[in-house]
Amino acid sequence: MSHLACDIQKNVLKNKEKFINDLFDFLKIKSISAQNKEMESCANFLKDFMIRQGVQSKILNIDGALPVVYGEVLNSNANKTILIYGHYDVQPEDPIYLWDSDPFDPEIRDNKIYARGATDDKGNLMATILAVKTLLDIKGTVPINIKFFFEGEEEIGSPNLKSYLKKYKDLLESDYTILCDRGIHESGRPQIYLGNKGITHADITVYGAKRDVHSGQAPLIPNPSWELVWLLNKMKDDQDEILVDEYKNEVIEPSEEDLKLLKNIPFDTKEFSDTYGINRIIGNKKNTDGVDLLVRLLYEPTMTINGLSSGYQGEGNKTIIPSRATAKLDFRFVKDMDPAKSVERIKSYISKVFKGNIDIKFGDVRNPSKVSPNESIVQTSIIALTEMYDNGPVVWPLLDGSGPMSLFGEILDAPAIIIGLGSPFSLANTHAPNENIGVDNYLNGIMSMSYIYYLYGEDQ
Amino acid sequence: MSHLACDIQKNVLKNKEKFINDLFDFLKIKSISAQNKEMESCANFLKDFMIRQGVQSKILNIDGALPVVYGEVLNSNANKTILIYGHYDVQPEDPIYLWDSDPFDPEIRDNKIYARGATDDKGNLMATILAVKTLLDIKGTVPINIKFFFEGEEEIGSPNLKSYLKKYKDLLESDYTILCDRGIHESGRPQIYLGNKGITHADITVYGAKRDVHSGQAPLIPNPSWELVWLLNKMKDDQDEILVDEYKNEVIEPSEEDLKLLKNIPFDTKEFSDTYGINRIIGNKKNTDGVDLLVRLLYEPTMTINGLSSGYQGEGNKTIIPSRATAKLDFRFVKDMDPAKSVERIKSYISKVFKGNIDIKFGDVRNPSKVSPNESIVQTSIIALTEMYDNGPVVWPLLDGSGPMSLFGEILDAPAIIIGLGSPFSLANTHAPNENIGVDNYLNGIMSMSYIYYLYGEDQ
Repeated sequence: MSHLACDIQKNVLKNKEKFINDLFDFLKIKSISAQNKEMESCANFLKDFMIRQGVQSKILNIDGALPVVYGEVLNSNANKTILIYGHYDVQPEDPIYLWDSDPFDPEIRDNKIYARGATDDKGNLMATILAVKTLLDIKGTVPINIKFFFEGEEEIGSPNLKSYLKKYKDLLESDYTILCDRGIHESGRPQIYLGNKGITHADITVYGAKRDVHSGQAPLIPNPSWELVWLLNKMKDDQDEILVDEYKNEVIEPSEEDLKLLKNIPFDTKEFSDTYGINRIIGNKKNTDGVDLLVRLLYEPTMTINGLSSGYQGEGNKTIIPSRATAKLDFRFVKDMDPAKSVERIKSYISKVFKGNIDIKFGDVRNPSKVSPNESIVQTSIIALTEMYDNGPVVWPLLDGSGPMSLFGEILDAPAIIIGLGSPFSLANTHAPNENIGVDNYLNGIMSMSYIYYLYGEDQ
Repeated sequence: MSHLACDIQKNVLKNKEKFINDLFDFLKIKSISAQNKEMESCANFLKDFMIRQGVQSKILNIDGALPVVYGEVLNSNANKTILIYGHYDVQPEDPIYLWDSDPFDPEIRDNKIYARGATDDKGNLMATILAVKTLLDIKGTVPINIKFFFEGEEEIGSPNLKSYLKKYKDLLESDYTILCDRGIHESGRPQIYLGNKGITHADITVYGAKRDVHSGQAPLIPNPSWELVWLLNKMKDDQDEILVDEYKNEVIEPSEEDLKLLKNIPFDTKEFSDTYGINRIIGNKKNTDGVDLLVRLLYEPTMTINGLSSGYQGEGNKTIIPSRATAKLDFRFVKDMDPAKSVERIKSYISKVFKGNIDIKFGDVRNPSKVSPNESIVQTSIIALTEMYDNGPVVWPLLDGSGPMSLFGEILDAPAIIIGLGSPFSLANTHAPNENIGVDNYLNGIMSMSYIYYLYGEDQ
């Protein structure tokens, strides 16, 4: 281990009590964006806190949006700038009766801090600030420019993120963006994500008679439930093949370097199946190997029914032909698919195969995002995380989900990666009762970010 | 017109005020079976009322069931017996604010009696009793044995009808059953139905992961919504063809005599489409003729989705793979299909084409029912109705719906027909606010039944 890595660890451990107390103060604020609770006071707390750690800070605003807390620590000798993204809002605490302690009065049990937002995202966010404080303590300076962008609307879908990035484009100018809104791997290894899928949503509604009709009329009256079934069946067949023309043409295979990363990701088919209580994995027959499954997970575009709704859904029976039927779907797009073009293809395909009375509402589109493993920020992060954890990081060339990553590249020209800190999200009860972050996980996050800032600067 | 028909008409018109008051008394009782309201008092009213009209009457009981009111008027010289079926329970009055007058305080407006149950079924039921009273007034006797079976559970699905018929099999022994629980045709002509389809229900639920899963996992985790779509698509294709093996083998074509009846049924495609607000009729292209459509309506077995339910159905989006998906269906069977055998075929077909985690719950089965137009009761009814209305009856060889008709043939060996009296159900707001029966329709019902009783006896 390098001297500096060692110094960072010692400094963080020395400040352990202070750092835990800092997080406690943050966790006590009920910053629930869905209920617009204590958002202003949380933003002000965060601003003042950053200033106390040696980071210049101010509040950014857009009409009708919750405030963003901006921070910066600049070094006039540095020619590199990193933007750190996080969020200070949290999910509602419901159902409150399932919590073993007050969600807004943090408590340590078994060396874990229990509170809403412990790891998603307050613990992780705080680590990115205290990492600066740590470097300043040790070296008196940071070797790069660091900018912080903490929004208050992540848990309600970041409706104004795009507008904020556009409005404050100049202020936020950076080389790379690091999102710290994910956890470490279940195995205890840290994680890096180099991209994610694009996404959009659609509500498809098929209409029949103007009201529900007695089902005795079934031989003559069109049934929108059946028509929806037939339409959906034409969109994806029972081999899970998407049938929309040209939909898959743009999909690329993983590169050699991506494949190398995939082989280093722990993935146990049985464990995966047990976690979700399923007795088979789609396509398991043709792809039994863990890497093949990961390739499917990350490189396949998807078309997913999120919900179906039609007619009578209660107890017993009602002999009706429903007057309408709705399917809610999401579509995930992989690099290099153009989601906007794909939406047009879906629409045109449906109009080709379906002749009934239909209404299709597409939601906003988010583009896929992807950074090469060869980018300097990725290489630096791998080295730093390998020193700070027992094992090197799990590096995901892509995330199976979607998110705003692409916006940072598109608007700021600061391509984004995700660094997973804190506790494993799947084990830390994120969005659920008894959310927690391991004390050691929290401290490891501070050490890791500190060392990433330093190493990335060293590389200049 | 025969002398007797003329006498019947005169007698009924003479008693008009009394007959209307009798119905008013009946309609004032809130016999709502779904809420178990005033059921005993209604049954007692009906028993006492029948006795006052010269019909012997008593209450029949089964543990846990609402009472049946039985009545009989016997003639020791008669060798024919008719069983009259009706029901004294009514639908709830909700939504009360849409009624223009109190649903349980009958009022005459525009020569129509407005009240819950006016035609479904209190007005029609009362007509069958007052028809006896009329004959007794004129002739002092009835030429046949007439038995009355009035249940209190029709509006909740007749759950104990089968048990009642079995328990009181000997008491109820008859040659034919006449159900008076339908209206006349929209054109003003009376109606006769010679049978109906069989029916059963199924809830089909497909299961996936043990809880809803983030839809990022869609390439690997089976989605029960999709699986349900694919299964349903294998059960009926987009040409509306049922694909279950051998399902249709047993379907018969309408007989020559049925076809003759069908040609006499008014059916206007445009009017039908306008009524339901649809812009096409299933199979319209191949069968544009009204009779062909009627054949499809009445002689085709059906498989109807009544409802679909899965995952997220609210506003906006939720990126999940649902953990389950349910379809509610009804299946209607035509003569000579064996519904029980068909259920086995459906189950076995599903197990052949579907390999996932599934639960199928079938409901009770009701058999199809069919009486030949050549049966004496049918011929007699046609003659009687032709005399009592301006135009002869619309005779349906089959009803597009289902019901308990087959039970009377199966248990009592007294095959059932339906005689539509009162007002047209589709125009009389049955089951809806402002239910009504035309005063003339009500009186015509009494006259018609009276003349049917008489003519059927003449024929001995």
